[in-house]
Amino acid sequence: MTYCLGIVTKHGLVMASDSRTNAGTDQASVCRKMFTFEVPGERALVLLTSGSLSLSQSVVSLLQADFDRGEGLARVTSMYEAARAIGAQVRKVREVDCDPLEKDGYHFNVHFLLGGQIGEEAPQLYMIYPQGNPLRATEESPYLQIGETKYGRPILDRGIKFDTTSLEEAAKYALISLDSTMRSNVTVGPPIDIVAYHAGELKITRHRRLAENDPHLVQTRRQWEQVLRRAIHEMPLVTFNDAPALTV
Amino acid sequence: MTYCLGIVTKHGLVMASDSRTNAGTDQASVCRKMFTFEVPGERALVLLTSGSLSLSQSVVSLLQADFDRGEGLARVTSMYEAARAIGAQVRKVREVDCDPLEKDGYHFNVHFLLGGQIGEEAPQLYMIYPQGNPLRATEESPYLQIGETKYGRPILDRGIKFDTTSLEEAAKYALISLDSTMRSNVTVGPPIDIVAYHAGELKITRHRRLAENDPHLVQTRRQWEQVLRRAIHEMPLVTFNDAPALTV
Repeated sequence: MTYCLGIVTKHGLVMASDSRTNAGTDQASVCRKMFTFEVPGERALVLLTSGSLSLSQSVVSLLQADFDRGEGLARVTSMYEAARAIGAQVRKVREVDCDPLEKDGYHFNVHFLLGGQIGEEAPQLYMIYPQGNPLRATEESPYLQIGETKYGRPILDRGIKFDTTSLEEAAKYALISLDSTMRSNVTVGPPIDIVAYHAGELKITRHRRLAENDPHLVQTRRQWEQVLRRAIHEMPLVTFNDAPALTV
Repeated sequence: MTYCLGIVTKHGLVMASDSRTNAGTDQASVCRKMFTFEVPGERALVLLTSGSLSLSQSVVSLLQADFDRGEGLARVTSMYEAARAIGAQVRKVREVDCDPLEKDGYHFNVHFLLGGQIGEEAPQLYMIYPQGNPLRATEESPYLQIGETKYGRPILDRGIKFDTTSLEEAAKYALISLDSTMRSNVTVGPPIDIVAYHAGELKITRHRRLAENDPHLVQTRRQWEQVLRRAIHEMPLVTFNDAPALTV
């Protein structure tokens, strides 16, 4: 399983992913799910993947080959075009692989999150579906998730606002959201890759990889448990009308 | 959709459920998903249901008819037998309804949570599967969920301990878990039914139904958002090696 998320605010983007991959539960390994495409000063793109590793590798290989030739993601002039360029490669791989997969009962399952900025445009965040069509994050709905999305969503729903959430806080939300998911689903696992991108930089300068025992991750986890328990403690008591008070 | 959960601690039980039911997204209504079976001083049982309303109604009707005749849940002498009595009725309904459902492409989908206490036994919590087999909550895994379970799970994973969580706190956790789920999935909705049961009472004295605009629920929601934001604010900054600090 996988969990990746992207957050877009008026200040920029935060993109984060886990690194666990598995075929069944007995074949688990570590695999990077974050890929960057940059022409400093001109464009900075971060791609996150979920779904079948075989399929996402194929799509990324095609995108990388194009990029290296100055085509595709190296050439598009807007984030919309970038999302479409990814969708086009998804459809190419689909044409090659979908039928043989479905014949054996597998779905063609691969999702992408694309965050980044090209030239003068504002930073944008897209999801690309297995059918190749793109969905854009909006000011009202400023984050997108792929993979094991539910465990990590409540904290985002409560906190992320396009206009007011700082990038510093967005990075904290992303980390908590990922850590909550890892806690509830063992097939989502470290290391965590996280990128924070400030609007206008057109260059990826802030990337961090947090291993399982990274002191920052350990400290975040410990402190988060403490504040949640304290928070619950401070919440108003649930009272039950005429019933005797709960003393334990 | 539905979300129900039960928590068992050494002090007793908390059982909680939402009340939204829908057939498709255009036919939503309010429906109680919590049922109690009591012989004060002897046994107190709380049943929560998810899945097809038609199926859970049938099972509850059969259980109620037995109970009213002094059979079934009125007669069993342990919580294990109670869980088995429910499973037996699930299998009876399955025999009647499963084939016609599957012929039209529906699954036989109904789950139950059973919490309660019979006589001298410690309070116990069970899940009963659509196949009729029971699963018991343990000290290491002291809560069970049915329906839309993922959004509301991280808060439980972080906080519930069989030995140390008080019933007061368990009731708060249950409410937060339900409210987080309602926030992230519109097909889970109020009113919320919540029961707190103290070991040894053998009688259900603490039941509360919280409507959407119940002041306690509104206050809980508001305060929870505030404490989460403050908690995020207090978490350590994610730093990015040599990169310039994020100033927004």
